[in-house]
Amino acid sequence: MSTAPIYLDHAATTPLAPEVLEVMLPYLRDHFGNPSSIHAAGREARNAVDEARDRVAVVLGAAAREVIFTSGGSEADNLALRGAVERGDRGRHLVITAIEHDAVIKTAEALAEQGRAEVTVVGCDARGVVDPDAVAAATRPDTALVSVMLANNEVGSVQDVAAVSAAVHRRNPRALVHTDAVQALGKLPVDVTTLGVDLLTVTAHKAYGPKGAGALWVRSGVALAAQVSGGGHERGRRSGTENVAGIAGFGAAATLAEAERDTEAPRLAALAERLSELVASALPQALLTGAGAPRLPSFATFAFPGVVGEVLLTLLDQQGVQASGGSACASGAQMPSHVLSAMGLPPALAGGALRCTLGRGTTEEEVDRAAATIVAAVRQLSAVVPARS
Amino acid sequence: MSTAPIYLDHAATTPLAPEVLEVMLPYLRDHFGNPSSIHAAGREARNAVDEARDRVAVVLGAAAREVIFTSGGSEADNLALRGAVERGDRGRHLVITAIEHDAVIKTAEALAEQGRAEVTVVGCDARGVVDPDAVAAATRPDTALVSVMLANNEVGSVQDVAAVSAAVHRRNPRALVHTDAVQALGKLPVDVTTLGVDLLTVTAHKAYGPKGAGALWVRSGVALAAQVSGGGHERGRRSGTENVAGIAGFGAAATLAEAERDTEAPRLAALAERLSELVASALPQALLTGAGAPRLPSFATFAFPGVVGEVLLTLLDQQGVQASGGSACASGAQMPSHVLSAMGLPPALAGGALRCTLGRGTTEEEVDRAAATIVAAVRQLSAVVPARS
Repeated sequence: MSTAPIYLDHAATTPLAPEVLEVMLPYLRDHFGNPSSIHAAGREARNAVDEARDRVAVVLGAAAREVIFTSGGSEADNLALRGAVERGDRGRHLVITAIEHDAVIKTAEALAEQGRAEVTVVGCDARGVVDPDAVAAATRPDTALVSVMLANNEVGSVQDVAAVSAAVHRRNPRALVHTDAVQALGKLPVDVTTLGVDLLTVTAHKAYGPKGAGALWVRSGVALAAQVSGGGHERGRRSGTENVAGIAGFGAAATLAEAERDTEAPRLAALAERLSELVASALPQALLTGAGAPRLPSFATFAFPGVVGEVLLTLLDQQGVQASGGSACASGAQMPSHVLSAMGLPPALAGGALRCTLGRGTTEEEVDRAAATIVAAVRQLSAVVPARS
Repeated sequence: MSTAPIYLDHAATTPLAPEVLEVMLPYLRDHFGNPSSIHAAGREARNAVDEARDRVAVVLGAAAREVIFTSGGSEADNLALRGAVERGDRGRHLVITAIEHDAVIKTAEALAEQGRAEVTVVGCDARGVVDPDAVAAATRPDTALVSVMLANNEVGSVQDVAAVSAAVHRRNPRALVHTDAVQALGKLPVDVTTLGVDLLTVTAHKAYGPKGAGALWVRSGVALAAQVSGGGHERGRRSGTENVAGIAGFGAAATLAEAERDTEAPRLAALAERLSELVASALPQALLTGAGAPRLPSFATFAFPGVVGEVLLTLLDQQGVQASGGSACASGAQMPSHVLSAMGLPPALAGGALRCTLGRGTTEEEVDRAAATIVAAVRQLSAVVPARS
């Protein structure tokens, strides 16, 4: 039996696709120029950035000039919220949902604490789904920006962002609609026209690209206050020498993710369904979080009564199954998940959460092995409580 | 005769050292985990980030916990200025110099335009040297931060930052002193205790590390308002999934740069001196900008009367010499250099600027060839004006 770990934490980060690394390597070896230099070495680097921008734009159905490269999703989310509020011409009110990524929630909170913004938080239902009309109802004449993530990072629930955009814009045509599409890239269509949004966040490392490269797409004509000032890179919207290799890798990853989406999404959905069923049939006490919601195909998420998530994850890790509790993006956080809380899970149940997120390399054999390992681990840890609650 | 271009633009960016790439590759291949994940893949990544933090801290003579990794120097400079002003507990006045990098100047300007800060700009002498007493004299009781770069990126002049820190702190012990040490890493000591500063910016890609990784060193006890909020990475001071490979490369590059500094700095100084002399002796009309200042060893900078810098650079590029006018960090900028202007050069002369910055791979043979190429190019372009003015 293989002892290689089974990696079921693709929502935390993905391996770099070998073909993406191949695109990056020339820029880590010979083509090291600064894209702002006018000589040949600089032009080579500039071409790589331009090509990557084109690639990302194609995947988003957008114009290349609308793509602002950032260091990742968190920076892009911050630029959207801080940039809109600081600009101030639309107002200083923000609408977010209770299940946003911390890069949105904590940023809104920070702006509110500093007295720079007023924030309204819209809840979700028990499946982790947000009502577009509730978002629109929270929108005011002084709303600068509404942020509703396309796909949630903890339970994989997918929001009807097109309906959100339409409803919000009906209520306040000037309010910007932002969506964090970090988890959606390669799993769902991320066409900005269909979504009807004004701002959209993507990042490379959740879609087989490198860590350190992301983007905020900004609809043409929308002005944001830059959050990193300096040499005027990215058309003055984000300064700093471009991470050329990372950006080139992002472009390649975006193209690859979109090309494989049609075949990969149903394959992952079947595997995730299999994992959920194997675990649920053996452990009837398991709650399938996010069940019934429109979902990302790669997610199989659970909450086990009477189990401490951290202990379960450690045991699984020892047995070669790498998964997570909720988000991996909260560095060292041990708090009950804000997403599961918003879905109405009591803290005791939310504390026994398990997130399995499948990916490009996941096989059926791995899923079967992982299911058996999870079932045995939960049974071991639940030994002190009744097997059926 | 070799036709490989001679790269004399190391102040714009440096090639990645092969030994640095070797350190990075495992994190671009097998060890792809998210440092926030608690499983083995995550812990491997966390260890890489921790090790890099230790390495950078050793070079700065600092504690690892004081190092905040960022996407680069511009973000670090922005975090210093914006983070200090936004925090607001020291006041809202900034002191900068006229020769700072745009990441400092434009950020100060943006904060002033938004009414969030008041800015005093201190000039320099004809060599590009700032008087520490003038900086101290500009410091007020409500000064939040003073920013004086350790080594200038256009002419290589080195500031007496230790004297600045002492003088500023004598006048206002609460004012933070920040230095942008981006160009200094690997060329000068960057010991934070000797410099007496509170905040210091470094970046990897100017010292044979990768683009996309930098750091702000923040003296223990100094609080800044985070500029990227989210998952609470970097002890809550800069959120976003860590660019693990880039950070690992930064750590390796910092160690390498410091290890080679004692031998490399005098070697570069001799080569830069040789280049300056070869050009100056053949072209008596050449002005040696920054001459007489304490200088970075790698800089040979000129201004040629009657020559249009852009034309000269293009001609040199065609002939295999890759250099720059002033900074390469101003994306596509065609403005007369703010540094040369501050040094009192009239626009016509500043427009004929040439910056040659030498590096690890530069040889004496390259210097001799570059000098001959520069001399011939300037003579060709100066043909319409008298050879001696």
